[in-house]
Amino acid sequence: MSAPAFGLGLGGCDASGNWLELYYPQPMREAPPEVWRALEELFGYRGQSLTAVATDELEEFSEVLRTVGLSEQAALAGQLYHAESECVLSVLDGDSPPVDVPQAYLMLHLLSHRLVRPHEFNLDGLFGVLPTVAWTNMGAVAVGELAALQLRARLDGSLLRVYSIDKFPRMCDYVAPSGVRIADSARVRLGAWIGEGTTVMHEGFINFNAGAEGPNMVEGRISAGVVVGAYSDLGGGSSTMGTLSGGNETLISVGRNCLIGANAGIGISLGDRCTVEAGLYLTAGSVVSMSGHPGFKKEWLKARELSGQDDLLFRRNSRSGAIECQPNTLPIRLNEALHSNN
Amino acid sequence: MSAPAFGLGLGGCDASGNWLELYYPQPMREAPPEVWRALEELFGYRGQSLTAVATDELEEFSEVLRTVGLSEQAALAGQLYHAESECVLSVLDGDSPPVDVPQAYLMLHLLSHRLVRPHEFNLDGLFGVLPTVAWTNMGAVAVGELAALQLRARLDGSLLRVYSIDKFPRMCDYVAPSGVRIADSARVRLGAWIGEGTTVMHEGFINFNAGAEGPNMVEGRISAGVVVGAYSDLGGGSSTMGTLSGGNETLISVGRNCLIGANAGIGISLGDRCTVEAGLYLTAGSVVSMSGHPGFKKEWLKARELSGQDDLLFRRNSRSGAIECQPNTLPIRLNEALHSNN
Amino acid sequence: MSAPAFGLGLGGCDASGNWLELYYPQPMREAPPEVWRALEELFGYRGQSLTAVATDELEEFSEVLRTVGLSEQAALAGQLYHAESECVLSVLDGDSPPVDVPQAYLMLHLLSHRLVRPHEFNLDGLFGVLPTVAWTNMGAVAVGELAALQLRARLDGSLLRVYSIDKFPRMCDYVAPSGVRIADSARVRLGAWIGEGTTVMHEGFINFNAGAEGPNMVEGRISAGVVVGAYSDLGGGSSTMGTLSGGNETLISVGRNCLIGANAGIGISLGDRCTVEAGLYLTAGSVVSMSGHPGFKKEWLKARELSGQDDLLFRRNSRSGAIECQPNTLPIRLNEALHSNN
Repeated sequence: MSAPAFGLGLGGCDASGNWLELYYPQPMREAPPEVWRALEELFGYRGQSLTAVATDELEEFSEVLRTVGLSEQAALAGQLYHAESECVLSVLDGDSPPVDVPQAYLMLHLLSHRLVRPHEFNLDGLFGVLPTVAWTNMGAVAVGELAALQLRARLDGSLLRVYSIDKFPRMCDYVAPSGVRIADSARVRLGAWIGEGTTVMHEGFINFNAGAEGPNMVEGRISAGVVVGAYSDLGGGSSTMGTLSGGNETLISVGRNCLIGANAGIGISLGDRCTVEAGLYLTAGSVVSMSGHPGFKKEWLKARELSGQDDLLFRRNSRSGAIECQPNTLPIRLNEALHSNN
Repeated sequence: MSAPAFGLGLGGCDASGNWLELYYPQPMREAPPEVWRALEELFGYRGQSLTAVATDELEEFSEVLRTVGLSEQAALAGQLYHAESECVLSVLDGDSPPVDVPQAYLMLHLLSHRLVRPHEFNLDGLFGVLPTVAWTNMGAVAVGELAALQLRARLDGSLLRVYSIDKFPRMCDYVAPSGVRIADSARVRLGAWIGEGTTVMHEGFINFNAGAEGPNMVEGRISAGVVVGAYSDLGGGSSTMGTLSGGNETLISVGRNCLIGANAGIGISLGDRCTVEAGLYLTAGSVVSMSGHPGFKKEWLKARELSGQDDLLFRRNSRSGAIECQPNTLPIRLNEALHSNN
Repeated sequence: MSAPAFGLGLGGCDASGNWLELYYPQPMREAPPEVWRALEELFGYRGQSLTAVATDELEEFSEVLRTVGLSEQAALAGQLYHAESECVLSVLDGDSPPVDVPQAYLMLHLLSHRLVRPHEFNLDGLFGVLPTVAWTNMGAVAVGELAALQLRARLDGSLLRVYSIDKFPRMCDYVAPSGVRIADSARVRLGAWIGEGTTVMHEGFINFNAGAEGPNMVEGRISAGVVVGAYSDLGGGSSTMGTLSGGNETLISVGRNCLIGANAGIGISLGDRCTVEAGLYLTAGSVVSMSGHPGFKKEWLKARELSGQDDLLFRRNSRSGAIECQPNTLPIRLNEALHSNN
């Protein structure tokens, strides 16, 4: 990115003052020059990661933001100035991977606010930067402090509920993108990128740095790094093979107007208007019969040779058991009623 | 329905006073004539949707209910009379689709209270009537009001947790049918119809206007409109093809004493005592070998020609790869211990 | 077990005083002789199940624990002595199945604290002992008391949220084992046994008396009784066939360095370094071609004859549709970054 991205926010710490999580209500992708200058003058920004912010500078910063017409950012700075908890100002400058928790959370916010697309950020080392956190009804808790807090709550007659122990929080607790339905917020990590008109059903899942352009129906799993094009439908329980675990090494994607049937899966990229029959898992190494497709001369191809091509229909012949590829004459159409009323 | 259904309840609104959700503790399928008359006399009911209720009339209505022997309804009317929030009285009369949020929620409640079976209601236009709501630890929130509330909570040192952004709430927050276990309430929408003795495991899912007669083991997904007969078992991750998305157009059902194996799926209806082998997805267009079934003369049939028939076993021959249909000699039996102690 | 296991804790009851659930912060697998003697002298322990504990004896018991060097147990006894709710002391002695709720919960705690491995306990009759509980934001609620409480909350302007109606609570609300990530706590029951370095992703699931030795990647379902060896990876939506429902009768397990691909499944045990291709469900009755494996002379074997054997790769030939077994030359390696930073 040419101009620095920045975010004003607040967050939670462990007992030693280490950041556990950060919340940036209105992260900004590209700060104008005046803001950049203010970052340097007020906060001494020289490319490092800023975090704790003295409140006096925050008031001045709010003035700068108002002057350059960023009234919502100015209002936020004003609200944070009056907040009781410690405030954060984090800046991203250049193409470096995140160096600390505030930067990592700013990147995840920018993705979920749709200000940055998957793969625009260099997320190398993210798992090492992000702490594992217990996400509870009493907020973010350091894993090492959990047991004592759990006992304390019980002795006091209350209850510490733990929703998740993970490096990533649930996106909806931080960002709720417009025009999106998410039936179970536990299934979408902060850092997911979800376009307008998309419905993520109960069986859907979207990892960080991955997403769906929208509108989409997502009842399957979008693995880290995978991007799905507009008007595509991932059927219930369907799988897109990721690269973080399981041995797959090539990042895949799904084009527009594709249907991956229920319980199906792909280990190759799909172009536009492709369909994979319900229940069929097409791995990169699957050998596919092309005899029903006039556009191909070879009788058999490895699925990876078809990666990214348009207008293909994949199914398993239920007589011969062979996986076949044919021209896709009836690509999917989304149900208007499910996506127009989000 | 011949007599009107009605429900007394209360609910949540957005900042402009539009209903977001309604809670009817004891909806009633058929009101006796005296109640119907009272609806007309006290509330001026003439077929329209009633909602806001003046408290004086509510007290009189409670008297009428007591007089005709509906003591629980009378008690509820009395409690609502003393409630602080606005009360609702909603009536359903005839076979019309829902015209507003109170009617839509009354229908969903009647289904989950098992007073109305799936498909009895005309639910045309339901997605247009139901607002998309953010379901949070602070109650139902209008999606447009979410971001401000989230920031406000953080500034106050608390936390707005968002469980779901959806048109349907979780059934268990409104209705908990007797004799039912639901391992993860996030997986059952209000409007699901679940019979006594049913266990919905963590991987199970039941949509609105769909359900299981009970007793059943549900570790798979029951799509909108799909009904499963008694003593059937949907294995982990199994799929019943729905009609709302993915291109399928024929509503399917599952009979009694069926087993759909883990990760299997069906695009056709099953009669009674059918089994689909684990991992096999039987679409309507699958061509099935009948050579092992003495009751059929043809060698190959499309699966849709077998839709709804009893005593069939479907499996994929692991030598030839062909899908085969045979007589089902060992239909499923549920584990008594799992269902008798609900 | 030779010496008795015991746990000090507290819990919730229904309106009649029946236990709904118990929380033991520090259960102990083997109490030293002095503690056993104190159990007999102070609490009259003679092999029965102890539950309610008079506070005076608890103070004395704390002294005994301190004397024998169990300072953490002593501190806990002291804290419980000052707690407002009723305290519990439960003892397990010998190989008997649980006779009451406190014993059953103590067993589940010992499993999740990794003090007892799956199958060490006799859990016969567990489903009959455990009450079905509504797990809510207001704590454990008896199912029969739920509707009244739900209405009461609404009338008071608050909200009773029901997370689950089940015999088992979520493990993380009771035990959070070290070095483990669990992306959605709804997917792991108390009684799961999860080794250090294990990640349970959103689609993962672990039942009671089952688990993963660690480190492991769990994106599939570990059924009751199933144990997975170290360094194995269960792909997204993969299935391990259980014995509680669905008709399977033989308990299975997974060895070390195995990969069960996404949406795959097994009905047989795997030895070490086995791989099952994504999307392939290998049932015990599957007939498998051995022609590609030099170590076997027969051309076809039933999968159950290969149960528990090492170094096997299972895939479905995408030309012939036949399930084939070959030597596994490239067993899985876990992604170091995902498991070293838990």
